[in-house]
Amino acid sequence: MNLAFPLLLLFLSASSFADQDILLLSRPLIADRAQNVARDDDADDLLIRCTSWRVAGEANNLAPWQTVPPECGSYVREYMTGKGYRYDLEIAAREAAAFARSVLLAGDGKDAWVFDVDETLLSNLQYYADHGFGLELFDSHEFDKWVEKAVAPAIQSSLQLYHQVLDLGFKAILLTGRSEAHRDITIDNLISVGFRDWEKLILRGPSDRGKSAKIYKSERRSVIVADGYRIHGNSGDQWSDLVGSEIGHRSFKLPNPMYYIP
Amino acid sequence: MNLAFPLLLLFLSASSFADQDILLLSRPLIADRAQNVARDDDADDLLIRCTSWRVAGEANNLAPWQTVPPECGSYVREYMTGKGYRYDLEIAAREAAAFARSVLLAGDGKDAWVFDVDETLLSNLQYYADHGFGLELFDSHEFDKWVEKAVAPAIQSSLQLYHQVLDLGFKAILLTGRSEAHRDITIDNLISVGFRDWEKLILRGPSDRGKSAKIYKSERRSVIVADGYRIHGNSGDQWSDLVGSEIGHRSFKLPNPMYYIP
Repeated sequence: MNLAFPLLLLFLSASSFADQDILLLSRPLIADRAQNVARDDDADDLLIRCTSWRVAGEANNLAPWQTVPPECGSYVREYMTGKGYRYDLEIAAREAAAFARSVLLAGDGKDAWVFDVDETLLSNLQYYADHGFGLELFDSHEFDKWVEKAVAPAIQSSLQLYHQVLDLGFKAILLTGRSEAHRDITIDNLISVGFRDWEKLILRGPSDRGKSAKIYKSERRSVIVADGYRIHGNSGDQWSDLVGSEIGHRSFKLPNPMYYIP
Repeated sequence: MNLAFPLLLLFLSASSFADQDILLLSRPLIADRAQNVARDDDADDLLIRCTSWRVAGEANNLAPWQTVPPECGSYVREYMTGKGYRYDLEIAAREAAAFARSVLLAGDGKDAWVFDVDETLLSNLQYYADHGFGLELFDSHEFDKWVEKAVAPAIQSSLQLYHQVLDLGFKAILLTGRSEAHRDITIDNLISVGFRDWEKLILRGPSDRGKSAKIYKSERRSVIVADGYRIHGNSGDQWSDLVGSEIGHRSFKLPNPMYYIP
């Protein structure tokens, strides 16, 4: 709550500045102050409420949702473009790296770490900045045009984690909700921003159409495990990346208050 | 960031108040202002960092931890005693109630909702207020003395949810890490604050000694399911309440930045 302006007016009202332009107000100062304080209290309350909504999403408490609640639009924009989002990404990567270092690898080439792609390795923040940071209903046609530009930057903390787990000897398996039709463009994008040497890049094929992400990803992880891999870590920004079957020993939920994929 | 004081000083420095007591400062105003702004920036940064730590816990990203990070002690105290904790409890209960209403019950007396007890139905906030809100290492001897007083209040949003799920026809199954030795005192406490008509109250028996909460609760849920119950909802403040086997159709993670139980 920033009281600078009303406090200042109260002080100046008794000063030699009393006749200056700054005090040419149409309402009594006391009323103004009360109104400003009330507005600040409302803003504080909204901030806490929108934080609660965001945290409920991160804790997987929210029922499926389609758009950011309108009253939290500014909150989400400020969170995504400020330190909050960056720090949340960084702590998820830091905890994942600490866990990765603690794993005793068998060293047979079957120690795996599963990564989602969008909002996990690659950032589509620029696209969402142009579409209300989650206030607009998701438009797959518009989003496909963005994907096809192949210009999504790496999430820096994830890029660092990615190289750390490779260096430790894990195999990186990329499991994305993007379609096989976007395989080449996705590879171009990933390589151009520094990702390399993945063991597999799994995209949605024709037989996955209509499946929820939770089912599609569970099925594909089951095949990964049937192929002899041990999934030690699993990183994703959606709970549908992290629940279901063969979820791995540890999951790391990257922040995302902009959209929900079931 | 509250700029009231430095801004005020900057304005007044050019005013007719220049020789008054308020401006008898030992250092130049500009330096003072820079220092105050830096202090505000540091406080803002710490707030965002401690929020990140708390959210990482709620998202189950944190490795096992023993105490609140010392630099986040004040943050956790303010969160627990302010609106943040209350709103987070309320949204968890609201989402749980919405899910409960959406369930098609079989009506055979086997539709179950599992509740943890401490920090889920009953609040030990008074105990933790006297022990640093999670800054102190957990002391089971001291905590037992508190439990034996049987004065823990109900978490109001949970009490409401509890009655809502009972009214909808669910059977409430209480599954707690408390020991069998505390059965009577726990029943007294629960009843005195408004909980009633549970189907089962399951506490740790002698054979559960040394088991992690995750293992103990998974084993007990497996027995519940073997007895023919369908676990539709599961409410708990620890991830060890909500992961493992037979986790139910939906889980609801109540907030708790004060302690971690594996």
